Amino acid sequence: ILADLANVDNSRERASKLLQWLISPVPSRTFFSETWEKKPILIQRKNPDYYKGLFSTAEFDRILREEDVQYGVNLDVTSYTNGRRETHNPPGRALPYNVWGFYKSGCSLRLLNPQAFSSTVWNILSILQENFGSMAGANIYLTPPGTQGFAPHYDDIEAFVVQLEGKKHWRVYNPRVEDEVLPVFSSPNFNEADIGKPILEVVLEAGDLLYFPRGFIHQGDCLPDAHSLHITISSYQKNSWGDLLQRMLPAALEIAVEEDTEFRRGLPLDYLTYMGVQNSDKDDPRRQQFFSQIETLMKKLTTYCPVDAAVDQKARDFLHDCLPPMLTPVELASSVKGARTRWEGGQVTDESLDINTQTRVRLLRAGCARLCSDGEAVHLYYTTANSRVYHQEELQSFEVKAEFTDAVEFLIHSYPKFVTVGSFPCDSTEDFVSEIVLAELLFEKGIIHTSEPL
Amino acid sequence: ILADLANVDNSRERASKLLQWLISPVPSRTFFSETWEKKPILIQRKNPDYYKGLFSTAEFDRILREEDVQYGVNLDVTSYTNGRRETHNPPGRALPYNVWGFYKSGCSLRLLNPQAFSSTVWNILSILQENFGSMAGANIYLTPPGTQGFAPHYDDIEAFVVQLEGKKHWRVYNPRVEDEVLPVFSSPNFNEADIGKPILEVVLEAGDLLYFPRGFIHQGDCLPDAHSLHITISSYQKNSWGDLLQRMLPAALEIAVEEDTEFRRGLPLDYLTYMGVQNSDKDDPRRQQFFSQIETLMKKLTTYCPVDAAVDQKARDFLHDCLPPMLTPVELASSVKGARTRWEGGQVTDESLDINTQTRVRLLRAGCARLCSDGEAVHLYYTTANSRVYHQEELQSFEVKAEFTDAVEFLIHSYPKFVTVGSFPCDSTEDFVSEIVLAELLFEKGIIHTSEPL
Amino acid sequence: ILADLANVDNSRERASKLLQWLISPVPSRTFFSETWEKKPILIQRKNPDYYKGLFSTAEFDRILREEDVQYGVNLDVTSYTNGRRETHNPPGRALPYNVWGFYKSGCSLRLLNPQAFSSTVWNILSILQENFGSMAGANIYLTPPGTQGFAPHYDDIEAFVVQLEGKKHWRVYNPRVEDEVLPVFSSPNFNEADIGKPILEVVLEAGDLLYFPRGFIHQGDCLPDAHSLHITISSYQKNSWGDLLQRMLPAALEIAVEEDTEFRRGLPLDYLTYMGVQNSDKDDPRRQQFFSQIETLMKKLTTYCPVDAAVDQKARDFLHDCLPPMLTPVELASSVKGARTRWEGGQVTDESLDINTQTRVRLLRAGCARLCSDGEAVHLYYTTANSRVYHQEELQSFEVKAEFTDAVEFLIHSYPKFVTVGSFPCDSTEDFVSEIVLAELLFEKGIIHTSEPL
Amino acid sequence: ILADLANVDNSRERASKLLQWLISPVPSRTFFSETWEKKPILIQRKNPDYYKGLFSTAEFDRILREEDVQYGVNLDVTSYTNGRRETHNPPGRALPYNVWGFYKSGCSLRLLNPQAFSSTVWNILSILQENFGSMAGANIYLTPPGTQGFAPHYDDIEAFVVQLEGKKHWRVYNPRVEDEVLPVFSSPNFNEADIGKPILEVVLEAGDLLYFPRGFIHQGDCLPDAHSLHITISSYQKNSWGDLLQRMLPAALEIAVEEDTEFRRGLPLDYLTYMGVQNSDKDDPRRQQFFSQIETLMKKLTTYCPVDAAVDQKARDFLHDCLPPMLTPVELASSVKGARTRWEGGQVTDESLDINTQTRVRLLRAGCARLCSDGEAVHLYYTTANSRVYHQEELQSFEVKAEFTDAVEFLIHSYPKFVTVGSFPCDSTEDFVSEIVLAELLFEKGIIHTSEPL
Repeated sequence: ILADLANVDNSRERASKLLQWLISPVPSRTFFSETWEKKPILIQRKNPDYYKGLFSTAEFDRILREEDVQYGVNLDVTSYTNGRRETHNPPGRALPYNVWGFYKSGCSLRLLNPQAFSSTVWNILSILQENFGSMAGANIYLTPPGTQGFAPHYDDIEAFVVQLEGKKHWRVYNPRVEDEVLPVFSSPNFNEADIGKPILEVVLEAGDLLYFPRGFIHQGDCLPDAHSLHITISSYQKNSWGDLLQRMLPAALEIAVEEDTEFRRGLPLDYLTYMGVQNSDKDDPRRQQFFSQIETLMKKLTTYCPVDAAVDQKARDFLHDCLPPMLTPVELASSVKGARTRWEGGQVTDESLDINTQTRVRLLRAGCARLCSDGEAVHLYYTTANSRVYHQEELQSFEVKAEFTDAVEFLIHSYPKFVTVGSFPCDSTEDFVSEIVLAELLFEKGIIHTSEPL
Repeated sequence: ILADLANVDNSRERASKLLQWLISPVPSRTFFSETWEKKPILIQRKNPDYYKGLFSTAEFDRILREEDVQYGVNLDVTSYTNGRRETHNPPGRALPYNVWGFYKSGCSLRLLNPQAFSSTVWNILSILQENFGSMAGANIYLTPPGTQGFAPHYDDIEAFVVQLEGKKHWRVYNPRVEDEVLPVFSSPNFNEADIGKPILEVVLEAGDLLYFPRGFIHQGDCLPDAHSLHITISSYQKNSWGDLLQRMLPAALEIAVEEDTEFRRGLPLDYLTYMGVQNSDKDDPRRQQFFSQIETLMKKLTTYCPVDAAVDQKARDFLHDCLPPMLTPVELASSVKGARTRWEGGQVTDESLDINTQTRVRLLRAGCARLCSDGEAVHLYYTTANSRVYHQEELQSFEVKAEFTDAVEFLIHSYPKFVTVGSFPCDSTEDFVSEIVLAELLFEKGIIHTSEPL
Repeated sequence: ILADLANVDNSRERASKLLQWLISPVPSRTFFSETWEKKPILIQRKNPDYYKGLFSTAEFDRILREEDVQYGVNLDVTSYTNGRRETHNPPGRALPYNVWGFYKSGCSLRLLNPQAFSSTVWNILSILQENFGSMAGANIYLTPPGTQGFAPHYDDIEAFVVQLEGKKHWRVYNPRVEDEVLPVFSSPNFNEADIGKPILEVVLEAGDLLYFPRGFIHQGDCLPDAHSLHITISSYQKNSWGDLLQRMLPAALEIAVEEDTEFRRGLPLDYLTYMGVQNSDKDDPRRQQFFSQIETLMKKLTTYCPVDAAVDQKARDFLHDCLPPMLTPVELASSVKGARTRWEGGQVTDESLDINTQTRVRLLRAGCARLCSDGEAVHLYYTTANSRVYHQEELQSFEVKAEFTDAVEFLIHSYPKFVTVGSFPCDSTEDFVSEIVLAELLFEKGIIHTSEPL
Repeated sequence: ILADLANVDNSRERASKLLQWLISPVPSRTFFSETWEKKPILIQRKNPDYYKGLFSTAEFDRILREEDVQYGVNLDVTSYTNGRRETHNPPGRALPYNVWGFYKSGCSLRLLNPQAFSSTVWNILSILQENFGSMAGANIYLTPPGTQGFAPHYDDIEAFVVQLEGKKHWRVYNPRVEDEVLPVFSSPNFNEADIGKPILEVVLEAGDLLYFPRGFIHQGDCLPDAHSLHITISSYQKNSWGDLLQRMLPAALEIAVEEDTEFRRGLPLDYLTYMGVQNSDKDDPRRQQFFSQIETLMKKLTTYCPVDAAVDQKARDFLHDCLPPMLTPVELASSVKGARTRWEGGQVTDESLDINTQTRVRLLRAGCARLCSDGEAVHLYYTTANSRVYHQEELQSFEVKAEFTDAVEFLIHSYPKFVTVGSFPCDSTEDFVSEIVLAELLFEKGIIHTSEPL
């Protein structure tokens, strides 16, 4: 699949194809209209190789051997026995000798950020995030036969449980109350007595998929005859309308106060004598007036909401959360990371790239850069300098001068089409100097690539 | 006037009488409906003794001599000469020898918190704050003949300029633009060129009053033949509807997100592709849908606004800002500060106060305590432990147990009436023990006093 | 006594007279050679009025009534009953009504910094500190009849227990072990079983004095028939040779490393293989060599010790700890605090002091200012801007320019003699301008006074 | 050479052989007695391949391509032209395309911690540090023909300049003054005018070595016809007797104060009147007495110096600075990192290691662990969990219980001999359980390895 996807030219299309493959045969459109954020769905395939290549326990062993996996940071050792959930992390680096010792004694292993260790997981998540418009994360769970590693609980993310090896017995339960539908925070561990009867009970086998929205309680345990390896892909953490409003409201009020005298006018001299909790039972006409003034102002406030600016705040957070793109061979050959300049035979060779007005370029990925306005200045934010480790780098950006804003916007909106550097809408007086300067800057930061290898 | 006010039994009435006296002969009602927050007003009295006793330069001299007045903290030495505004504060304590030296050399003196040094100013402000429901502050300005101490500027408070000695030439200007009407912040110093023509120009003499709302630019200078001493009484800093909304909106959204699934629902998968500043020119029907969903949510949000709780937040801030009450002799004799218990003749005398069910009590002042609910617990906040120095003490409060809540609310709403301790609505099973415990607690904290001296 | 002392012209003499009065009839010389830091001493006088006027419970009552005494900060309410020591401080201000309630119920009262509330205590301590060359502090203890307020313990200060009213039964015990002789820290509370037999047991009556060095365990309780009021005057906290060395050693090493290559030379390549705790049992000749090199360097280090600079560090700490001088009427009339400049009759009068070359001046007190060198610059540190509240102000100082250093040193060493401003050793080219500038500066900061009132 | 060294069984011997190879043909003994910390030495070999394999520009190119090299953190781009030293680091990751661009424009490249990117450099430094008993670091410098990258300066470390490719013209100058012999801090950049004449001027060619002690000023520039690549190996930063004393003195004083009353005795009452800078010219016999008491105490202090404990403080800092050992194949096969336990064929295999009383073990490296006593508890500190990046990990340690202390000390002192687990001196009552528990613990932390692969 990933090899196929590398041939899809448009990254947005690539992302939606990958999601379609993940949930196939359910059509994406149906999934998002009927299932997403609404109810669990089980997809059984009787095809243990469907997700093959995504990840394996052998890969897990290799990672432990070759990479610096730290207990508590990258790996959790857990158990859930007789209703008691425990974590067994020692300090320091997780070596195979110790980790497999835990496994043999019945502990589950949870690899916390497999994208930092597995290129395939990195690739998949970095593609999927473009489909969700929200960070895509993953954990990998390895469970010994006949054991359970976690207590029943619900999460604050949309979860895709992808069974990779062996099998696992799952039980999924409805949110307990309306307040826990699409919850903002994950739950603590529950007792069996708290959660009622499962609405779905199934044995997931390699190649199967189980999806459930945030708020749905779940637990999984291994049958005595088989271990289980699955990856849970997650998204939509803190990506609700409420999260957007949280960013928007203070700005909306600030604007309203600046622009509208009504918001700056003093409160009534005596409002403390009839408002407040101690007066809430009072039957005072001034209370009605006060409430009605609040209502008036809230109505006005709506008109001051800076929706696009608030979306950009969310967008910037998302760009910071993003995995950097994992380049296909074609992308590599046509971007800064694969540039041929190198030390060879005692000297630097191919040191100068020839970007000229005829060079055709486009964004490396549809969503890898975004133009946001912070009051006066305009900045371009981009994901290509991000790390595979969450927030290891600050979000990168640079100010886009007024003369380049149109060109950058043009580039962003042209995607997936390649455009010539000469066609950038800059007011260049001297032979396209500006256009080339801009193209070189974007090329050096890995934001654009060329239609042909340089 | 203050002696008269001490005989006014109800502190709210006392406050409104004091304000009436301040602006007399303009009736309060007229003042607040036509002038307050709208325009300057000048009250000329031809009675230099009208404000006599409020403050004098002799009192200033005494304060410098006897109190620890610190440059920069309590006193500013300033000048405004040839359009240049300077501050001349040395470090350390301001002694008469040095301060009068500055004065003689043409500097203005600004005493920053006269209420900490002058009981009369303390008394007046502590009464006025009850009228405004907002902190009343004051600065005192002493200006040598023929000089000016400050550049033209506007403030962020309603200002009452009370001329105490000598005279001063004032010029008042309209707010320059709509944005500076009732502004949230004070202005920087202006040049004469920036401010246009005065709408009011006058020589204020002892006994006169000049009021102007926040946002009105002003400047005052001394005539060659007389020094000037005035006190500026201020209020309504950060006391607008916008300030209330600032406290209310985050709580409103939190409630909405908790109670209403619509706020917890995920944003559209692809919203980043058509929303945000870089897409703001796009003519995409999805943008309309997005805006309309925001509007729907804002409308819903209005219904979740916790108005009374937000008012209580503002009330708590106000209670913290408040000056402690300055007790009249009668109040003193009937409250904890004046209790007769003392060391005399080698032993403690009158050590036990006899609060019993027949004792009649009430709040010391109408606004000296307030019952607020922080989620589950109910607390009583009170001003009687405040300091004359702004925020020198934390806001004091204690939790009111459920069994006492009704009694405290009863006490608050009974004011100005005295009620017997036995009439407190507590579910006391054993001979009014609860009632007496509560009364003693409130008495010890200086929140209530008795109808007769104990 | 204090009135008499005010007539002693030299502040050092004044200080030693006060101490002599305190311990009379024991001669100071005998006291410091035989008793101080060595053993307790009891002075019984049969004269209840000997210390009269120093402090009284009536004064205590006045302080509670008029000053802002805060529980825990200025006042502790304690009890020691059945071997259990408790503190009963409520939050907030200590009002007589509540404090006397505690007293009646058998609690002891400890006033923590009486010098902030009582001018007499302030005066006495500010004089004594000059005798000790170390901060003099005080606590006042009021104990009800038949009770004890504190468990047996030892302190880290030299203690003078001055009985003011009533009587108290005291037991004093030897330090338990050599390590607790002249200890650096106070002890925890002891059980009776830990402390052995008293070496001194006595009933202290009004007018008596009990002194004991730090490290001597002690406890006092009231007889059933009388309350007790005493003040404990303390000094020499952290004022030992070790404290001086602590400041000196880092500086000594820094100098040695700068000036002596031996200190900068590398350690032996293999020292880690034969030195360190794991090798401490090894019988390796290289260990002896290593130790002997350490010894050589320590001997060298002694020659680099900046003793005077380290003393100045201690001196600066002391100057910061100092109470400000409490001025006698004569001192007041001849120094900045009593300067006649004032507002009178609508204008500033006597505004200019006439300091000229004939004016005779000296330091206000022998130890009120000190010249210290911090590497390159020379600063004058002074106590006259200190507060009666411990460390409420930063230590004040200013840089003394090279041209003034000699003059300031001359002034310091001239004390107690007055010298004319004209005699200051400045290289003044223009009519003693420098001398007058310096004198005015020192006068304005309250460091010097004049021989006659200005 | 490194392959040969892997066969040297004793890590200390290995370290001294590596150093010998580095400075060959000068014998180590001669070098350390005559040259080290004393003067520069030049070793010319006419053998460009002598250091081959250590590092190359091709390796540099590979690192840029494959590793996350960050400007400013891992790589500096510098130039020194016309007496002006500049740094040209852009933000972010250093990609070949940009780095080689800088090089072509005449900038020097300094790779700051090559040990994190090159296993060979890591291996060499981790071996050398055992020889120095002090951290061994390295920088790599690549300079284009005809340019110079750095201004003349001296460093605070002993420097071994190892020429790897091309050639470089070096000038070395004597320390300018005695104070700059073996300096504690590096110098700023010097002007040519400040540094006098070189004492050594030479063209270093591949295979040559130049050593100079800290404090010797140096500068190197490339001839027009050849680039230069060299690695500077450094050690002995802050590793002097003074550094040891800095750690020892506060502890020595603390002990002296605890054990010796002389240090706790109060300072003379009047010392502030004759000591201190303002009194330093006084000819007062008390000053002599004071100085002599200081001398007495300094002599006493020497006897309280906790030399071994101070060495352990330095040792702990060194262990934290250490690179982790880079394992030889034999070490790998016989220690926890190479244990055979793994996931294979759907299950864990070889999961239990059989450490028994007959297993023969020893420390992985002579200096990889150290037993230190912190007052009461004994801890074992070890380097095997350190990172290749300086201080990326905290120094690792664990408490060694009293019953294991002898066994650990036995193990440390037995090196390089292997000893059987059964021979550990533990008071094991039950069949060597303690011995095996200890051996397993040390094995899991990578501190010991076995004589045969497990």
